[in-house]
Amino acid sequence: MLVLGVDPGLTRCGIGVVEGTPGRARLIEAGVIRTDSALETERRLLVIEEGLQEWILRHKPEVVAIERVFAQHNLMTVIGTAQAAGVAMLVAARHGLSVYQHTPSEVKAAITGSGRADKKQVGNMVCRILGLEAAPKPADAADAVALAICHSWRGVADQRLAQAAKVGTVRKVGR
Amino acid sequence: MLVLGVDPGLTRCGIGVVEGTPGRARLIEAGVIRTDSALETERRLLVIEEGLQEWILRHKPEVVAIERVFAQHNLMTVIGTAQAAGVAMLVAARHGLSVYQHTPSEVKAAITGSGRADKKQVGNMVCRILGLEAAPKPADAADAVALAICHSWRGVADQRLAQAAKVGTVRKVGR
Repeated sequence: MLVLGVDPGLTRCGIGVVEGTPGRARLIEAGVIRTDSALETERRLLVIEEGLQEWILRHKPEVVAIERVFAQHNLMTVIGTAQAAGVAMLVAARHGLSVYQHTPSEVKAAITGSGRADKKQVGNMVCRILGLEAAPKPADAADAVALAICHSWRGVADQRLAQAAKVGTVRKVGR
Repeated sequence: MLVLGVDPGLTRCGIGVVEGTPGRARLIEAGVIRTDSALETERRLLVIEEGLQEWILRHKPEVVAIERVFAQHNLMTVIGTAQAAGVAMLVAARHGLSVYQHTPSEVKAAITGSGRADKKQVGNMVCRILGLEAAPKPADAADAVALAICHSWRGVADQRLAQAAKVGTVRKVGR
């Protein structure tokens, strides 16, 4: 499954493209979309929209996985982060792609086996999984890669659950 | 000045188009863009994008005024509200329109003279200003109209301040 992961942010929006099947993953490309903090927010959102569109057209992912933003996140940046995430969701939907959101602890658990793993541990496991000597840089790109791996490993099970929930055999338990 | 006001929200995004000069205002049109809560968030954002685009093309406003979203707002809805606001900002920027944000207390102060006025008082003043017998409905449309009036009355002064801040004669005082 070709997954484009997005670690949303106004200043640096991390992107990671991964081809993965449960237990395996291959890094295709990682990077960030940067926007100038001197620009008005609406111009920054336009830069993110254009950048994401370019990544989607270039890699043609099957799904887009985005880090879920919580209101309890850093109060100084949460609004900008939510807006960047909203733009990412919009661009994905416009290209007919499904969007999945995962929380940071879901990502940590998928990669390391523990939802409380620290950044370094996640970074080490990402390197081992992808066969890299060093984690992608900057950190936002590495986070997006981890998210894409998480989705490619969890995605199939999650989709089955969602399907089952739709036909009424499983009830969603507030995730 | 022809202003399109937006009271952002995922379920109901209020829109109000007002032609105003300081002390006067005329209502052009008010309404809401509704999205189905059963849809995925990314589809709802697409509906808001398309709706807003249609309003902008139909009315050709000079500026778009959006209610500023704060992280301290209702925790259950703040992320969706921020995402809807982000999409509104994006659509405005794509049409080359300037975006201004006003806080609810700035709107109340502009309309009633007090930043602590209650909803009813704001509604009464909006009716009086626009010569209406009843406030636009639903409440989200009325809020968007109040925001557009606020901007058409404050906008000129705000723009002069922003200009002055850019050339260095005035320092922004955390607004």
